[in-house]
Amino acid sequence: MVKYNVTFQPDGKTVTVEKGFTISEAAASAKIAIDSPCGREGRCGKCKVIVSAQNMESPNEAEDRFLSDEELSAGYRLACQTRILGDTTVTVPDDSRLDESKILSAGTGQAIELQPNISKIYVELSEQTLENQIADLTNLKRALKMPELAVDLDVLRRLPTVLRESKFKVTLVLSGNRLIGIEKGDTTDKKFGMAVDIGTTTVVCTLLDLNTGSEVAVASALNTQAAHGADVISRINYSVENERGLDELGGIVNEVIQQLAEKACAEGNVNPDNVYEMTVVGNTTMSHLFLRLPVRNLALMPYVAAVSDPVELKASQLGLKINPDANVYVLPNIAGFVGADTVGVVLASALHESDSIKLAIDIGTNGEVVLGSRERLLTCSCAAGPAFEGAMITHGMRAAPGAIEQVKLDSRPICKTIGDEDATGICGSGLIDIVAEMLNLGIVDYTGRMVPADDPGSHASAELKKFLGVSDEYGPHLVLSRSNGREVVITQKDVRQVQLAKGAMMAGVNILINTLGIKPDDVSEVLLAGAFGNYIRKENAIRLGLLPSFPLEKVKFIGNAAAMGAKMALLSREAREDARRISENTDYVELATDPNFQNEFIEAMMFPGE
Amino acid sequence: MVKYNVTFQPDGKTVTVEKGFTISEAAASAKIAIDSPCGREGRCGKCKVIVSAQNMESPNEAEDRFLSDEELSAGYRLACQTRILGDTTVTVPDDSRLDESKILSAGTGQAIELQPNISKIYVELSEQTLENQIADLTNLKRALKMPELAVDLDVLRRLPTVLRESKFKVTLVLSGNRLIGIEKGDTTDKKFGMAVDIGTTTVVCTLLDLNTGSEVAVASALNTQAAHGADVISRINYSVENERGLDELGGIVNEVIQQLAEKACAEGNVNPDNVYEMTVVGNTTMSHLFLRLPVRNLALMPYVAAVSDPVELKASQLGLKINPDANVYVLPNIAGFVGADTVGVVLASALHESDSIKLAIDIGTNGEVVLGSRERLLTCSCAAGPAFEGAMITHGMRAAPGAIEQVKLDSRPICKTIGDEDATGICGSGLIDIVAEMLNLGIVDYTGRMVPADDPGSHASAELKKFLGVSDEYGPHLVLSRSNGREVVITQKDVRQVQLAKGAMMAGVNILINTLGIKPDDVSEVLLAGAFGNYIRKENAIRLGLLPSFPLEKVKFIGNAAAMGAKMALLSREAREDARRISENTDYVELATDPNFQNEFIEAMMFPGE
Repeated sequence: MVKYNVTFQPDGKTVTVEKGFTISEAAASAKIAIDSPCGREGRCGKCKVIVSAQNMESPNEAEDRFLSDEELSAGYRLACQTRILGDTTVTVPDDSRLDESKILSAGTGQAIELQPNISKIYVELSEQTLENQIADLTNLKRALKMPELAVDLDVLRRLPTVLRESKFKVTLVLSGNRLIGIEKGDTTDKKFGMAVDIGTTTVVCTLLDLNTGSEVAVASALNTQAAHGADVISRINYSVENERGLDELGGIVNEVIQQLAEKACAEGNVNPDNVYEMTVVGNTTMSHLFLRLPVRNLALMPYVAAVSDPVELKASQLGLKINPDANVYVLPNIAGFVGADTVGVVLASALHESDSIKLAIDIGTNGEVVLGSRERLLTCSCAAGPAFEGAMITHGMRAAPGAIEQVKLDSRPICKTIGDEDATGICGSGLIDIVAEMLNLGIVDYTGRMVPADDPGSHASAELKKFLGVSDEYGPHLVLSRSNGREVVITQKDVRQVQLAKGAMMAGVNILINTLGIKPDDVSEVLLAGAFGNYIRKENAIRLGLLPSFPLEKVKFIGNAAAMGAKMALLSREAREDARRISENTDYVELATDPNFQNEFIEAMMFPGE
Repeated sequence: MVKYNVTFQPDGKTVTVEKGFTISEAAASAKIAIDSPCGREGRCGKCKVIVSAQNMESPNEAEDRFLSDEELSAGYRLACQTRILGDTTVTVPDDSRLDESKILSAGTGQAIELQPNISKIYVELSEQTLENQIADLTNLKRALKMPELAVDLDVLRRLPTVLRESKFKVTLVLSGNRLIGIEKGDTTDKKFGMAVDIGTTTVVCTLLDLNTGSEVAVASALNTQAAHGADVISRINYSVENERGLDELGGIVNEVIQQLAEKACAEGNVNPDNVYEMTVVGNTTMSHLFLRLPVRNLALMPYVAAVSDPVELKASQLGLKINPDANVYVLPNIAGFVGADTVGVVLASALHESDSIKLAIDIGTNGEVVLGSRERLLTCSCAAGPAFEGAMITHGMRAAPGAIEQVKLDSRPICKTIGDEDATGICGSGLIDIVAEMLNLGIVDYTGRMVPADDPGSHASAELKKFLGVSDEYGPHLVLSRSNGREVVITQKDVRQVQLAKGAMMAGVNILINTLGIKPDDVSEVLLAGAFGNYIRKENAIRLGLLPSFPLEKVKFIGNAAAMGAKMALLSREAREDARRISENTDYVELATDPNFQNEFIEAMMFPGE
């Protein structure tokens, strides 16, 4: 595999990327945030960078449109359009960087204003006198001119002592108009929040600086509830069948969040006491388990949640070891099988504000689909299964070092792994590549069957055929990698899992399109969300029929939009209110009662014919 | 002592009372609530009763005014005016009974509407369907038409199960617009609250039926914090000097309230889970200790409270074993030494709504004084000491069975004890009687000195003088009672305690009068509150100079008005709002900074001359 070094200036960071990667992709891997409101589509011209050596493809049409002749001759390029063909140095001007201090660029590029629910105010109070014996809280309220200030009992208990130990110079921490903290001296520069995405398979915690909106650290880990079942139904069953099952599963996810929060705080050098709010998204089962709300009814007809509204509580109520008085805000959900994570996707992709009809698909352990515009939003949940998160796949794994994330089938399988480590498994994007490549070479036919090596439909080279086999352990399979005696394979069963997953999702998409009474052509954009979204190759996803009927140019990857929604809710009260409205106004479509579902599902399981 | 039996009909209750008691007093002892909005002053004519035998004084002027000739000849009398001179039967017509179902008669007789903060609503919900998969909470909100309904996490956790186990027929418990409980079936008839008065010496819990406003049970006990000091200052010191002192004192009062609540619930046959709210009054130190708020600053200049506003919390936050989700509402205070109990006194006596200037004095371990009208209210706190609650008095005790509550000095001391038991000590009203009687007989002179038995100023009979003595143990003293080898005496030191107490209070009264810029004559009523208020004899209190400058007819006893305030706040949200306004709008006068205080204090310590 040909690789090149790219050095970013003035940051002085160098990363190694494969031939053909864009500068944007290289920058992302160097953790340099380049402004790209159009989602790296070459449609906004905001990602101008200067390249020192012209080891690049020539400027394309989009670059010609956005760059002047002077700029082009000075080495300016659009980072998202320019593919790297040799070692180079890239200078990123300030104008092209994401202005993280005030504006957060959400999933599809809309800007949100930094307006967190948490505020910190430094005040110097007058000490009371015999002539003015007002209570400490009254003194505070008058200084703040907030007669309606509410206060937690814990804070009230500390108030008199902190005031006097700090000579009446204190920083107040407010959650809305509720006083949740009082700190000695001026600590306004230390104000952090945590956005948590509880996936069925993976939990992601992002630590954000609420003064700047910038990400301080991200930590993710497997949701170890998986020991009690890979999908939500088995988790629900576990909680119902075991007396303390609900507490146990709730405790597990708390423990995971706990560790991630600690890790992120350590990485960001942030005192956990300075984390004053946590926003949480997750599917409805995950957020119910997090809150220890009973989930039994989520698995029984008619699949009813205990609550759809946002839920607020104190960190100490769940034993979360950030600031014990921190506000925990669990975003609202839409239905028993369309959770706060989907609300987050809509929020981040701004479907609720879109003039044209768009389709958002969140590919996780479940697949949630939202279709519509500012006029009306429809949603459904597809039991897609966890294939794209690596579960139920023979050598599946999540997107972590050692995971095969890209595959090309040549004379042998050419695999790129995350971190360029020895392959230990396959993650979602790798899975899509493999199946697409096998389809291209006729190793898999349109019904999903892995054909025998001598099948006339197979175009695999003789060399490649050596990697195909049938064994007792795997059945029909293709060996992708062998290193240190470790094999990574893809099997017939794995291909079936992919079919089931994409079939379920596409059936959902088709039913929503019918329900809204539109044609696929009326959909202006298809937004693909999911933790791996940014890494999979569109062409291959389309080859699989993961996005049938939609032309390539309409498809955009918006990354982990659910997590983005949690971040937006953390940084903006307006976004939080939007989330509430999205939850209330999105119509849930129950696939189980749709007479067309079975038919759509079976049809959608097939791969597109050649 | 001559006693008579009085039987009340149609209740069929018989009580034994001393000669000269009024029918109202007899009814109170039989726990029959006769309407007396004027405070038993013969000014409203509401307390008409029918007596079967004319063993009474003849009708007085007030009765002639309110009773027609027909009524008089039919045996009608005013209960508050008619003294009992023989065994009799009294019929109380329904019209003369307190209508407890809708109206609570407060301290000075103003009526308040039953409008508690706690409401219970029985609903039958529709079960969700596949076509209408709304969340359980959403289902509830829609049925209640309360989109802004807030909910406790605890309740949310129970919601799905309770709904289904009760076939969607449930009773909701609301505190304001917050859902604090959900119960199976229709339990609207079970709605109780607890009004708590935390005195420095005594704690009183009243269990009220929130559906009717009626008292179900009352329980009281000593505040066992007294083991750590008789007055607030010593309690504060204890909490400061001991590392866990605050928690300890808070724990003690919780324990006392716990036991009283249990006792009241047992007596009233009420399940503690059906007690949904507790309102709490107490002086500022008591309410701070109850809430575990630091009290150190209450004893240090400038005597600042942590909070003056009302504080709301959940019963479970303090481990109170009523309904764990019950709302605990601590009434607001006015200053470090003028607490929620004084707010309660103002509320119950309606000073804040009075057109004319009134004076309210709450005689407890501290003495709080409020002077004013709807125009302006002034208050101060007098370090009166706990004499009138029995503390610091050689044989002092609270008003409990065995306490001497009335004394007449004749050829020997004639003592009436509570419950007619053998005398074990002296309570506040007894103390006032004794000192007044000793003053009348010249046994004590106007400076408070107990004169020698042969002093020319003493008019005591030779027989009575045998009860006077001087001993090593007591110094100069008068023996009041000897029974079963047990002596109860009053000593010179006890008289000094009474002087200090009344001196402090009267100095406060005088300074408030001066501060408001009025004359004593401008005060239209003097309202005397305190646990013993209903039992002390006005004449004797005035004889002591406890209420100097005010004519007898202006003085009214309003009983434990602080506790009444707590009850009003429990039964009426409007009263609760009034309490908040009283707290905010009453001006605190600091006696320590008043240049006249020392002078006023020393003058007021003297007893009125003969």
